[in-house]
Amino acid sequence: MKLQFKLEKTDSKTKARIGVITYHQKEYKTPMFMPVGTNATVKTLSPEEIKEMGSGIILANTYHLWLRPGEDIVQKAGGLHKFMNYDGPILTDSGGFQVFSLAKPKDITEEGVHFKNHLNGDKLFLTPEKSIEIQNKLGSDIAMSFDECPPASASYDYLKQSIERTIRWAKRGKKVHQNPDQLLFGIVQGGAHQDLREYSAKKTVEIGFDGYSIGGVANDHESKTDMYNAFSYSTQFLPVDKIRYAMGIGEPIDLIEGVIRGIDIFDCVSPTRLARHGHAHTKNGDINIRNSKYKEMFEPIEKTCNCYTCKNYTLAYIRHLITTNETFGARLLSIHNITFLHNLMQEIRENIEKGTLLEYKEQFKKDYYGEKHE
Amino acid sequence: MKLQFKLEKTDSKTKARIGVITYHQKEYKTPMFMPVGTNATVKTLSPEEIKEMGSGIILANTYHLWLRPGEDIVQKAGGLHKFMNYDGPILTDSGGFQVFSLAKPKDITEEGVHFKNHLNGDKLFLTPEKSIEIQNKLGSDIAMSFDECPPASASYDYLKQSIERTIRWAKRGKKVHQNPDQLLFGIVQGGAHQDLREYSAKKTVEIGFDGYSIGGVANDHESKTDMYNAFSYSTQFLPVDKIRYAMGIGEPIDLIEGVIRGIDIFDCVSPTRLARHGHAHTKNGDINIRNSKYKEMFEPIEKTCNCYTCKNYTLAYIRHLITTNETFGARLLSIHNITFLHNLMQEIRENIEKGTLLEYKEQFKKDYYGEKHE
Repeated sequence: MKLQFKLEKTDSKTKARIGVITYHQKEYKTPMFMPVGTNATVKTLSPEEIKEMGSGIILANTYHLWLRPGEDIVQKAGGLHKFMNYDGPILTDSGGFQVFSLAKPKDITEEGVHFKNHLNGDKLFLTPEKSIEIQNKLGSDIAMSFDECPPASASYDYLKQSIERTIRWAKRGKKVHQNPDQLLFGIVQGGAHQDLREYSAKKTVEIGFDGYSIGGVANDHESKTDMYNAFSYSTQFLPVDKIRYAMGIGEPIDLIEGVIRGIDIFDCVSPTRLARHGHAHTKNGDINIRNSKYKEMFEPIEKTCNCYTCKNYTLAYIRHLITTNETFGARLLSIHNITFLHNLMQEIRENIEKGTLLEYKEQFKKDYYGEKHE
Repeated sequence: MKLQFKLEKTDSKTKARIGVITYHQKEYKTPMFMPVGTNATVKTLSPEEIKEMGSGIILANTYHLWLRPGEDIVQKAGGLHKFMNYDGPILTDSGGFQVFSLAKPKDITEEGVHFKNHLNGDKLFLTPEKSIEIQNKLGSDIAMSFDECPPASASYDYLKQSIERTIRWAKRGKKVHQNPDQLLFGIVQGGAHQDLREYSAKKTVEIGFDGYSIGGVANDHESKTDMYNAFSYSTQFLPVDKIRYAMGIGEPIDLIEGVIRGIDIFDCVSPTRLARHGHAHTKNGDINIRNSKYKEMFEPIEKTCNCYTCKNYTLAYIRHLITTNETFGARLLSIHNITFLHNLMQEIRENIEKGTLLEYKEQFKKDYYGEKHE
């Protein structure tokens, strides 16, 4: 059964929206943050923990699963849900981002991308058709069109040529999409250029997809202003009744700014990656738990936090686990960091309901960055 | 409140025993396998998972906790139970085994052992008094006397001199033991020599402890016969109403042979270490889950196993997690391997009840090692 999206409310002061995703009789609210399970596992966590934290959609990476264990094995297992024992909704990316970031492609052609397997150097070739075929077999609930992810430093002319090709790729992908239970999303590119975003959005909507993603916003080289503009430039040309998805965005302030500009769902590896490096989100900014000041701090990361970690463990214990490289430490911090983002999204939804999202943003920034931050 | 032990039944055909440990209104049966939580965490697992598997006592390593985070921090946290959020019984070793195996001591004196911190090379000095003082502060339910663990290759004369010193150390440790809620166990040494085991056992019992451990049996260089003889040579001189503990033993057949020779509790890092290396215990022998034959095996490790892992995940999925270095794989295998040993102990207890332990052993060996094994 296909995942359904219904828009419930639009903020009168911003572009923020509240929506409901229905999936197998369960409802999940948007705006939503999606934890990333690259290899069909959200690093260190069980499916039960993922659900207990309040997660809805989780993301799995097509590129990684294509290489290991291979899409045919996942299909034989009965699809991703059965393979990884997760009965909530799953989104797969197109593999494009990994091909462009991990695999250092040698050759982008009209047909597709020639590149090397980042694990063993084998020559590989990914096309829009192949990406959709893999995602069909993985059996995710939302598949993404294959797009080129040009670097932020790309010239206007290159970007223009690139979005034209990405539009042709989107058409080719849609043509071969075969999984009747799977939504297919298009991707809007165009860097920080208003006219390119408009062109890309309109052309992608013309093809017609079940939802739309804003790509090329997580790139390290772009400024925050460029990122936020890319949201605005894109969402204004997208149909209101479809999900808008900002790929690779996980910084708390970026989630708030994205929602304000009309984004519904976000994904990022940041909460689990920060956890493995010993960092925890808090309302008063992120902390590095290795800091010796936590050595004898026998209190939770955040006293007001309702997560398993904060209800049961102290900063001193988690610091001990992280400094002794015990994976239970990364697990406890992953639970806290993902819950932090889920709670942030819930507060965002509450403030959309109340019409106080902009005031909430100002207060959040004050608490998170301190008074000195402008 | 101190942990209580009551002997319930002794096998008529072997030295096997069934006992009950009572701890904070909860009862735990012996023979029992104790998972190891070196750094106050059973690697990859939560306290809830440890309990769900049916664990009773778990072990924490004094040497490791002395170095990080330090016994004073654990004491300030309210003791090990609060620090790690485990309300079941906890046993701490003396630190001796780690000092002799990890830290490569330079100098064993009557006073104690001079050695180097295996993490940073700092000079350290551990004495019987210091070991007990650390364990008192850690607040475990069972503390161990500080003993010398000579290599299996040690000469008879060296061993004789060593057990005399270990007996003097045991007396010194008992003298300074101050934690009224903590049992203190003595350790029987003596290698594979019947007379030394007898001497060590009798002298240790003379001092008087709350339980007795058989040390020097997990040493790699000893043969299985030496190990099993060391059990028999030791247990026959130990009081029947006290727990007998074989340190560092986790191979399934060794657990059965140990029980037959009168051992009540065992600990070993093996189930979690095997898990991290991708190995799983099964009734038909251990398997290496990296083997490509499991690539498309969409069934549990053991169809008859009642553990969380076998109820929810396939060999193909766990193989994928292990080959992609996902810690959830080690977690799933740790749950299976520890449950396997808990289930083994339960079957051992059932067969003591029925008087069929020796037949059970023969069948177990046939299944585990195959027909060819003698």
